[in-house]
Amino acid sequence: MSFTKQYKVRFSDTDPAGVMYYPRFLDRFHTVFEDWFDECLQMPYRWMLEDTRVGFPTVHTECDYRVPCRFGETIVIELILTRVGTSSFSCTYKVRALGEDTVRVHAQVVTATVDLDSFEAVEIPGRLRRQLEVRLQPTVRQVTTPEVAAAASE
Amino acid sequence: MSFTKQYKVRFSDTDPAGVMYYPRFLDRFHTVFEDWFDECLQMPYRWMLEDTRVGFPTVHTECDYRVPCRFGETIVIELILTRVGTSSFSCTYKVRALGEDTVRVHAQVVTATVDLDSFEAVEIPGRLRRQLEVRLQPTVRQVTTPEVAAAASE
Amino acid sequence: MSFTKQYKVRFSDTDPAGVMYYPRFLDRFHTVFEDWFDECLQMPYRWMLEDTRVGFPTVHTECDYRVPCRFGETIVIELILTRVGTSSFSCTYKVRALGEDTVRVHAQVVTATVDLDSFEAVEIPGRLRRQLEVRLQPTVRQVTTPEVAAAASE
Amino acid sequence: MSFTKQYKVRFSDTDPAGVMYYPRFLDRFHTVFEDWFDECLQMPYRWMLEDTRVGFPTVHTECDYRVPCRFGETIVIELILTRVGTSSFSCTYKVRALGEDTVRVHAQVVTATVDLDSFEAVEIPGRLRRQLEVRLQPTVRQVTTPEVAAAASE
Repeated sequence: MSFTKQYKVRFSDTDPAGVMYYPRFLDRFHTVFEDWFDECLQMPYRWMLEDTRVGFPTVHTECDYRVPCRFGETIVIELILTRVGTSSFSCTYKVRALGEDTVRVHAQVVTATVDLDSFEAVEIPGRLRRQLEVRLQPTVRQVTTPEVAAAASE
Repeated sequence: MSFTKQYKVRFSDTDPAGVMYYPRFLDRFHTVFEDWFDECLQMPYRWMLEDTRVGFPTVHTECDYRVPCRFGETIVIELILTRVGTSSFSCTYKVRALGEDTVRVHAQVVTATVDLDSFEAVEIPGRLRRQLEVRLQPTVRQVTTPEVAAAASE
Repeated sequence: MSFTKQYKVRFSDTDPAGVMYYPRFLDRFHTVFEDWFDECLQMPYRWMLEDTRVGFPTVHTECDYRVPCRFGETIVIELILTRVGTSSFSCTYKVRALGEDTVRVHAQVVTATVDLDSFEAVEIPGRLRRQLEVRLQPTVRQVTTPEVAAAASE
Repeated sequence: MSFTKQYKVRFSDTDPAGVMYYPRFLDRFHTVFEDWFDECLQMPYRWMLEDTRVGFPTVHTECDYRVPCRFGETIVIELILTRVGTSSFSCTYKVRALGEDTVRVHAQVVTATVDLDSFEAVEIPGRLRRQLEVRLQPTVRQVTTPEVAAAASE
């Protein structure tokens, strides 16, 4: 039920220490999030924003950077939906090098749903909610906090 | 004892929703971190990296994005040192609009010290440790976890 | 009559070769361009976009990267207005290290004026035109092409 | 003989005007340039830098931004080698929307070859030169300047 995308670490992702600059991971996670809307939820991200005027600001992020990623490496980013609330939902992201099991970067991101014109919180639209709920990881459905959910999903 | 820098939210910081794109805050925090080395600790960041070969990878970040920052606003970023460990230390960052008290973004960042050639953890160099310890926030010196320290320093 | 801004080359501006990544200069030029509107033309950039709905897409850029800029260096970016046309104008940007005469990066940027809702070209608004014309470099006022103007202004 | 890559315009590529921020194109061109080394020249870019210590600074860029690219569009970036000199070579980049013929962005980039340790110019290494020469566009082989070459290759 998870969603993965491959990404090649670019020259411009890499800092003078030769490793991927840590804010870049959050940027990469957002591209996977966009692709998840486009390819998995079948509700294109641009359509959500422009036609339904529902936006998805990130309200909380937590990242553990365990092993650096180097220029030229191909990484696999996994998105796992761990919580669906009233007007927010949580995803865990895991970064591994292609062909390896070690999780190099582990993150949780809480996304809110807002009216893009007022930036006020709105409930997750019904059609999106249904798409999310069927993708919620079974083993973590009963837990309440994203922290516990993330621990359980490891 | 805190260290602050002003920053104007740029056209290129802003996403189509008209607000500062969330990974940008982590990038901005790193520029404040660099300035803190250069201007406050009196140990220039570039000199640390190139001459002592000690690097400062970010190993953990936590951010709450409470209020969006809009294109053209000037924000004030405050860096507060909250913990000094053996081979890592923690800083809290608070983002406010210039002239306002509301904390819009609140973050904690754990930075490790490594040998840049091997990427192995090393102890915080003695001279840097002394600079850090005198800047540790008095009210939080006795607390043990960055979470509690951050709560106490609010 | 020129407009200058200082900028410190950041860790995240720098690529694994240790020098400022070349697309970053164009991004930095845009921040100087925004500041020029805010501080010199007295027509804040955000106000232009949001209230007059005139936008300023870049339609042509030319850059010579002559000497690399290294992490930690402070550079001075100079903006020189060299041409004011009907629905576009041209600026030259020169990058020097603080305290040095050598031009490390030399660029010309042609900016168009468009209606932000239709993205159709519009004439430069009258008030902006008056602000621009008084700032046009005297020595290059009679020349016709941005290329010649740039050569003449060296 | 040309080399093309597809790229989806991302939320974070897009500015408040809703179109791809112009310095991003240069960044995207560099990723195509890296892929061209990895996949076409069979001389991986990272290997060139780290093992041969030859670097490829960009020394000149020229871009025409003719039609904006919008968030969510898929663009096709075409790299065409147009000139091989002694210690530099030139590529033309053309950006089209997927399935369209109109060139939206047209750029020329001159890349030098340097010793990464001294940043002094070096001749293009023999093996790379042979890879480049067989890929030089036949119709433009006899022309001398990148400007003329680009015009001829349209």
